[in-house]
Amino acid sequence: MASTASPFSISISSKPTLKASVFTPNNSAELSLRVQSSKAASLRSSFVSQSSVELTRRGISALRASRVRSTSRIMASSAQVVDQPPSKTGPVAPTIVDVDLGNRSYPIYIGSGLLDEPELLQRHVHGKKVLVVTNNTVGPLYLDKVVDALTRDNPNVSVESVILPDGEKYKNMDTLMKVFDKAIESRLDRRCTFVALGGGVIGDMCGFAAAAFLRGVNFIQIPTTVMAQVDSSVGGKTGINHPLGKNLIGAFYQPQCVLIDTDTLNTLPERELASGFAEVIKYGLIRDAEFFEWQERNIQALMSRDPGALAYAIKRSCENKAEVVSLDEKESGLRATLNLGHTFGHAIETGVGYGQWLHGEAVAAGTVMAVDMSYRLGWIDESLVKRANNIIKQFKLPVAPPESVTVEMFRSVMAVDKKVADGLLRLILLKGPLGNCVFTGDYDRKALDETLNAFCKS
Amino acid sequence: MASTASPFSISISSKPTLKASVFTPNNSAELSLRVQSSKAASLRSSFVSQSSVELTRRGISALRASRVRSTSRIMASSAQVVDQPPSKTGPVAPTIVDVDLGNRSYPIYIGSGLLDEPELLQRHVHGKKVLVVTNNTVGPLYLDKVVDALTRDNPNVSVESVILPDGEKYKNMDTLMKVFDKAIESRLDRRCTFVALGGGVIGDMCGFAAAAFLRGVNFIQIPTTVMAQVDSSVGGKTGINHPLGKNLIGAFYQPQCVLIDTDTLNTLPERELASGFAEVIKYGLIRDAEFFEWQERNIQALMSRDPGALAYAIKRSCENKAEVVSLDEKESGLRATLNLGHTFGHAIETGVGYGQWLHGEAVAAGTVMAVDMSYRLGWIDESLVKRANNIIKQFKLPVAPPESVTVEMFRSVMAVDKKVADGLLRLILLKGPLGNCVFTGDYDRKALDETLNAFCKS
Repeated sequence: MASTASPFSISISSKPTLKASVFTPNNSAELSLRVQSSKAASLRSSFVSQSSVELTRRGISALRASRVRSTSRIMASSAQVVDQPPSKTGPVAPTIVDVDLGNRSYPIYIGSGLLDEPELLQRHVHGKKVLVVTNNTVGPLYLDKVVDALTRDNPNVSVESVILPDGEKYKNMDTLMKVFDKAIESRLDRRCTFVALGGGVIGDMCGFAAAAFLRGVNFIQIPTTVMAQVDSSVGGKTGINHPLGKNLIGAFYQPQCVLIDTDTLNTLPERELASGFAEVIKYGLIRDAEFFEWQERNIQALMSRDPGALAYAIKRSCENKAEVVSLDEKESGLRATLNLGHTFGHAIETGVGYGQWLHGEAVAAGTVMAVDMSYRLGWIDESLVKRANNIIKQFKLPVAPPESVTVEMFRSVMAVDKKVADGLLRLILLKGPLGNCVFTGDYDRKALDETLNAFCKS
Repeated sequence: MASTASPFSISISSKPTLKASVFTPNNSAELSLRVQSSKAASLRSSFVSQSSVELTRRGISALRASRVRSTSRIMASSAQVVDQPPSKTGPVAPTIVDVDLGNRSYPIYIGSGLLDEPELLQRHVHGKKVLVVTNNTVGPLYLDKVVDALTRDNPNVSVESVILPDGEKYKNMDTLMKVFDKAIESRLDRRCTFVALGGGVIGDMCGFAAAAFLRGVNFIQIPTTVMAQVDSSVGGKTGINHPLGKNLIGAFYQPQCVLIDTDTLNTLPERELASGFAEVIKYGLIRDAEFFEWQERNIQALMSRDPGALAYAIKRSCENKAEVVSLDEKESGLRATLNLGHTFGHAIETGVGYGQWLHGEAVAAGTVMAVDMSYRLGWIDESLVKRANNIIKQFKLPVAPPESVTVEMFRSVMAVDKKVADGLLRLILLKGPLGNCVFTGDYDRKALDETLNAFCKS
């Protein structure tokens, strides 16, 4: 018997419109945290400090009971600074930073114990099948927890997983194909969801796989390193490396949400922890002087993994990144400023071979070089050079490239940098007081030569 | 000396806003070909026939002298049909079909001798470097011509090329990497342009490479087969095959323009020519009864490569495709109807091994199977079955899958089809009078079983 059919069966995704909410246990109290927007042109961002920190101290047990929305716009501005890291006691409720990209907007949830809250993840899963992409370091620690969060009281969803080898050197096409193989063998269809569980490498590869599988499927980021939580998991840059350069193959592809459970940092090795702080420092240097000063006062709290300090640094970093990405998703200009130290850093990573230095370590040394060049150009004071070098040293990050990377290697890798335009290498350099930078190809070539010669052998 | 720099050097692409123009030698005559839009809900498209055909007979020599815009909206409707193929004499000026996708809109230029008009191509090249991607069949025939068109009187542009092995079996990740290798070795940057010169395989691979290289660069399609000209080069579907299925890895990525020089069909093998007509027939069956009837009357003109008949069939096909893509770029519903016969066809291609059957040959046999199933469901008359089979036979296309493809092979490949949603296989089937179809998972499974059993061994 022929069954009846409507002319077209059209699938419409039901994306939640949740934006910038803060959960509280009291559903009668409407807390307005909206802060007046400063002039957008200043491109300075803000943070809602004491009020939101108070909120985040509340127990997560009340999470499901009720919620009240209070708006914490990332474009807003505030003069208050958290001088003292919040208390170490107890789990914190999720703070939410919204990445505003029109119909591709999504929330970043930040807090302790969020992987024990299935509802947060499940609201962003589309379809009946999920593929968790992780690696052989993070998988044994958190895969079971994530599968439980995805499936608890949710019998309609089945979860597959693929466990990749850990490390930047595996961020290549061969490894990416393993994700496609698993997705196809598992008969995942266009309504499935990919979940990235791991650091920046996993996020970048899983994101690109999600962008390219069946020309695009849903995607969730669960970053488990500081580096991924403050930088790589936010903003939709995905991709893999080519033997001749980092991230040369990829896509701009936004996730449904980013879920940052700060508890996952408890298992992060020291070196990885420090590596992530290189990106935190970056936000301060290029656009957020007050955040930089807060970091200077809180280095020990961050190094000793004080939960409140970590949560604040992650939130503030995500707010900075979300603001920049919202203004320039495809990196036509402003977004490139997030790459302070990265052009030098990529050359180091490529020069020594992927995986020998962590990304943040290379960025730290690259930042010192970019700061040096900015000083040689006469664009910044010596005091800023000292402060930048000092904070990088205190985080136990390198302040120079390894001896094996020569001037010629720098030149060779920098020539294929994505920021080259019609043959001209554009760089992010500091200019003016702390918190100001430029993205430009208009600089004296001698300064670049001098910096390269000062930091490495010819 | 430090040079001055503006705070940000922001690159802004200068995309031409050319839309749906027809060139004429008389710049004083403003010809309005706008036809009133029919009800969009009817989803029936149109063609501006005699008027535009008159225009296209004019010599291209006047192309640069002047141009007058006349609007030929693809959403418009007309009752007129070209019963007689246009004259065979002389070159034709470009007909332009506009693909309306907001800020990703682009023109399709169709005409004889367009590769001798450098201005058409050059207006869509961004940056100073171009990478032409072609294969070892098409390259020797047209690469020099394309390089000349890109560089004539245009000393600022340099052109690199990469020549891939010809054939569907090379549409894979290994071959794609050769494009990235060449692009990176040639130090192409984000402002470069990729040009696809060849058939559907080249267009799909070059398009995906353009989408993924540095997370996206400019892209131009120069299709040289009927298949690519009427279907694969229009609409932004790009990708590569996986051993387990066709086009499972890719992106939606729109070109800057599509340039169809119908002269390139003069070198196309008979079998390739016929293969392309499978997609032309498809447009008639699913949504354009008048076009189907025109084809029935013009089979011999098309088979004998009458330039006017070919140009008309290409234009009409592009208009149909452009309309569908404009309404549903990401294939959430309507666009899937363009895959009539393709689910069965993909199973044939995968079953016999890529490259053994041409895509259009597999689609032709798949179309016969889809029509058979539609009839078994009681959704169409027997007369339509006969007309569909007859036109496919007259184009010397296969009306059944090869004996080597079994029912089990069909089931296995169809299970990973991109149109499967949450485990349910949705198919495009004809329903009602000629020119009507449905995309649905709501059909009697027995009819599918019967069709598979009728056409192949178990």
